[in-house]
Amino acid sequence: MIQNSTTTTLNEQLQQKIDLKTKPLGALGLLEKLAFQIGMVQQSLTPQLINPTILLFAGDHGVAKAGVSAYPPEVTFQMVMNIVQGGAAVTVFCKQNKLDFLTIDAGVNYDFGIVDGLIDNKINFGTKNFIVEKAMTRNELDLCLEKSAQVVNQVADNDCNVIGFGEMGIGNTSSASMIMHHITKIPLKDCIGRGTGLDEEQLNKKIELLSEANEFHGALNDPMEILQTYGGFEVAQICGAMVAAYKNRMLILVDGFIATSAFLVAQALYPEIKDYAVFCHNSNEIGHQKMLNYLEVKPLLNLEMRVGEGTGCALAYPILENAVAFLNEMASFESAGVSNK
Amino acid sequence: MIQNSTTTTLNEQLQQKIDLKTKPLGALGLLEKLAFQIGMVQQSLTPQLINPTILLFAGDHGVAKAGVSAYPPEVTFQMVMNIVQGGAAVTVFCKQNKLDFLTIDAGVNYDFGIVDGLIDNKINFGTKNFIVEKAMTRNELDLCLEKSAQVVNQVADNDCNVIGFGEMGIGNTSSASMIMHHITKIPLKDCIGRGTGLDEEQLNKKIELLSEANEFHGALNDPMEILQTYGGFEVAQICGAMVAAYKNRMLILVDGFIATSAFLVAQALYPEIKDYAVFCHNSNEIGHQKMLNYLEVKPLLNLEMRVGEGTGCALAYPILENAVAFLNEMASFESAGVSNK
Repeated sequence: MIQNSTTTTLNEQLQQKIDLKTKPLGALGLLEKLAFQIGMVQQSLTPQLINPTILLFAGDHGVAKAGVSAYPPEVTFQMVMNIVQGGAAVTVFCKQNKLDFLTIDAGVNYDFGIVDGLIDNKINFGTKNFIVEKAMTRNELDLCLEKSAQVVNQVADNDCNVIGFGEMGIGNTSSASMIMHHITKIPLKDCIGRGTGLDEEQLNKKIELLSEANEFHGALNDPMEILQTYGGFEVAQICGAMVAAYKNRMLILVDGFIATSAFLVAQALYPEIKDYAVFCHNSNEIGHQKMLNYLEVKPLLNLEMRVGEGTGCALAYPILENAVAFLNEMASFESAGVSNK
Repeated sequence: MIQNSTTTTLNEQLQQKIDLKTKPLGALGLLEKLAFQIGMVQQSLTPQLINPTILLFAGDHGVAKAGVSAYPPEVTFQMVMNIVQGGAAVTVFCKQNKLDFLTIDAGVNYDFGIVDGLIDNKINFGTKNFIVEKAMTRNELDLCLEKSAQVVNQVADNDCNVIGFGEMGIGNTSSASMIMHHITKIPLKDCIGRGTGLDEEQLNKKIELLSEANEFHGALNDPMEILQTYGGFEVAQICGAMVAAYKNRMLILVDGFIATSAFLVAQALYPEIKDYAVFCHNSNEIGHQKMLNYLEVKPLLNLEMRVGEGTGCALAYPILENAVAFLNEMASFESAGVSNK
């Protein structure tokens, strides 16, 4: 729990402020919980959301070549170019909802050279194929955490206090499924879904390949080892970025299946990070609901999307703005001269 | 179904435009359905949302004095003053999300005189107590439909093409429950909930009183007679406003339990109105989910709210903006040079 010397008082004051707004007790539902959480994260009765930012991390996966995705691996770099040019779903939503947006090359298998609007955090040209070896070295993992934390620290220096994370990486639902299985201990088969749209046969092949990887690496319990073995560079960098956001006491917007797999590792390392996390969207990717159940959280949106990229964060952000607005701007029964029960 | 001579072509063109955006097929879920619907309503491949407006209708209910609500009847006029002054939840959300907002006195039991920002559509000083007589005369009902249509027509003349409806009226969940029961034929008890927060004893009293009303008036099938017998002036005016919005080919934002009861009547009169309706929020009021099931629709949001006022419409509106934005602004696989499956 978020605590400091005035916690008890702030707790009570926030709840009282919410309860005395001109509405039936509790009638604003999840918005009340959200306003309370944001007040606690910011330790304030009048919280403000400042410079909201989405960071999108992109990376390639060695496992993608084995045939776990409906799309070819080159779609990762093609989509990065599309994202940088503002043509992707998440960039359209960020523009619409007035969030800042940064794209980070965490390890795409393509030499971008210098591209305006693309941050170079490249660890390598894609991870290794985790079916037959660890996805990355321990040194590469450490670099992931370090480099992504640097980006978050810079964003925090720009006064941003609410940050979300998206991803792009063909093959990364496979990475997320493996991480999910090892952190949550949910049977592997229940962690594997259709990703970008596999048919029945392709799904069976994905399950077969990931089961093979599972046998090869065996049982793993250390969160860092799980991330090193199965993580994509973008997944590991999101994990590092979430931890850095937590250390900066920022509100953390958690997106769909892949971003939540990074959160599972971050939470295994820092259990208190959950107090800072807002779960934005329930993805249609089959394992995501089970992740959310494991975390015992209820996301703000269920729009039946399965696109990742941070789209859920961008779409949920206006709800956070409205939660803060009601806390700061709604009248109380007393100020409005309305009879309470 | 919305139809004109070019329907088949537009159908296909819209779906193709959506399918060729740079995302897995169908991966934007409800946003894709929404974009398609808005395109069909506006008969356009590049729809625009113009001057979004929420109309809040307020009215008092004779039945409120019988003790069906947790709040005293004077809360209706007190809340109207709070709404006009911008202190209510819906006004805060409309300001935050940039929707125009109008308040209409449909029949509050209070002499407001001239209040800036309050439209005088008063039919009477509250309805009659429907436990012992019809809530309004047929003439009063006709006036409701006529006067609210006039307001909508004026808003439409201001180029608004997306309109939502909220309500304020102590006792109006009782009105909505009775309407729901008679339109849907769902057993009365399953239509009655806790409203603004009744306890077990108060809920039982509400069920008892509404059952008494049901016995007194007997079975009703004519939608207009149902509305006359049980409607509040605000419920009847919302019904008339929805029909007028439909006739103006506007997109109609449907809010919670009470607004949806008005929609049930509107749909009984004009079945095609459903093509124009966006269901915004699944209220925590117990009957609302059953109404939505009856209508075979899935709302955009489920934020566990039960406040009415049009809050669900105001909170869902940014999702509509994002649906239109992705349809108009996202790149296609071809334009972005991204490999499709």
